[in-house]
Amino acid sequence: MPDSSRRNESSRRAILTAAFDLVGEIGYAKLSIEGIAARAGVGKQTIYRWWPSKGAVLFDAFLMMSEGEAGELPDTGDLEADLKAVLRATIAELRDERYDLPMRALNSEMMHDAELARTYAERLDVPMREMKKARLRKAVEAGQLSDVDLDLAVDVIWSPVTVRWMNRSGPLTEEFADTVVETALAGLRP
Amino acid sequence: MPDSSRRNESSRRAILTAAFDLVGEIGYAKLSIEGIAARAGVGKQTIYRWWPSKGAVLFDAFLMMSEGEAGELPDTGDLEADLKAVLRATIAELRDERYDLPMRALNSEMMHDAELARTYAERLDVPMREMKKARLRKAVEAGQLSDVDLDLAVDVIWSPVTVRWMNRSGPLTEEFADTVVETALAGLRP
Repeated sequence: MPDSSRRNESSRRAILTAAFDLVGEIGYAKLSIEGIAARAGVGKQTIYRWWPSKGAVLFDAFLMMSEGEAGELPDTGDLEADLKAVLRATIAELRDERYDLPMRALNSEMMHDAELARTYAERLDVPMREMKKARLRKAVEAGQLSDVDLDLAVDVIWSPVTVRWMNRSGPLTEEFADTVVETALAGLRP
Repeated sequence: MPDSSRRNESSRRAILTAAFDLVGEIGYAKLSIEGIAARAGVGKQTIYRWWPSKGAVLFDAFLMMSEGEAGELPDTGDLEADLKAVLRATIAELRDERYDLPMRALNSEMMHDAELARTYAERLDVPMREMKKARLRKAVEAGQLSDVDLDLAVDVIWSPVTVRWMNRSGPLTEEFADTVVETALAGLRP
């Protein structure tokens, strides 16, 4: 990699990390390109060269943060144990302020920005949903799950944690994750 | 009722209706006390006399709109049919632009306004949750449902529709409502 590419890549990561941290600290409304630039130690023009808006920067920040999660869900052959592990990990993330606040900011923004919601769906939600469906499909093939609509299965398994987080309507505990998985699977088994 | 009370009540309803309609048309960020006053045909001071902020007005507007829904969930003795009817009605409401847009505005605002979220929980979410739990409790007593944690049961039955609406992650159809109820109940039955 030539020096300039390396420098670009390192500026890019600094900008995205700054955006992610800042939105958690001050909220989306107060987030600005100027603020991100100051925190990242780059010029405003560097950001405008790569992104059209603060929403676009923040979105790429989320994409960078979630890249580590991409790939596959665990498959030990025990669907219930695997899903419990996944939902417990999700809950641990949602209980972590470093993720909680930026994710609330992004979700809030998507609620009335249909374009941002569409980009989010295409680049984050759909790939993650496909990953979940791939794991469930293997369970269907192994006869551990009814041959149901997999989108419905994903909704039933994952939604209760999402709603409890969004509405703060109850404690997000590992026990909750486990019971949701047990109940959903009881309804989805052959 | 003396004339002045009647006049107050009619102004109050005009203001709340104006707030509800306006937020759907222009979004929460652009909503202002001035705009609400103009639409309702009252002076700004009338609004400030009763509410401290636009968020407080909007919240009471939601409370007024949902008052018609309070009371009880249907109980024909057939839990599955009753829940399908309730979820189909919810979907019809979420698909109606007059409700969809204001509810997105309120949800978006609650995502980062913890105080508004708390008021919402106390005055709207908890009473509605109690209503749902009362219906489920009767089903437990009738032996139609396992003796599970009723908060969990509410989450499993209602969350998939909420998430699909918020994230626009799939079609909100009556068929979806029916399948969610069937799957959730299969997991919750004795």
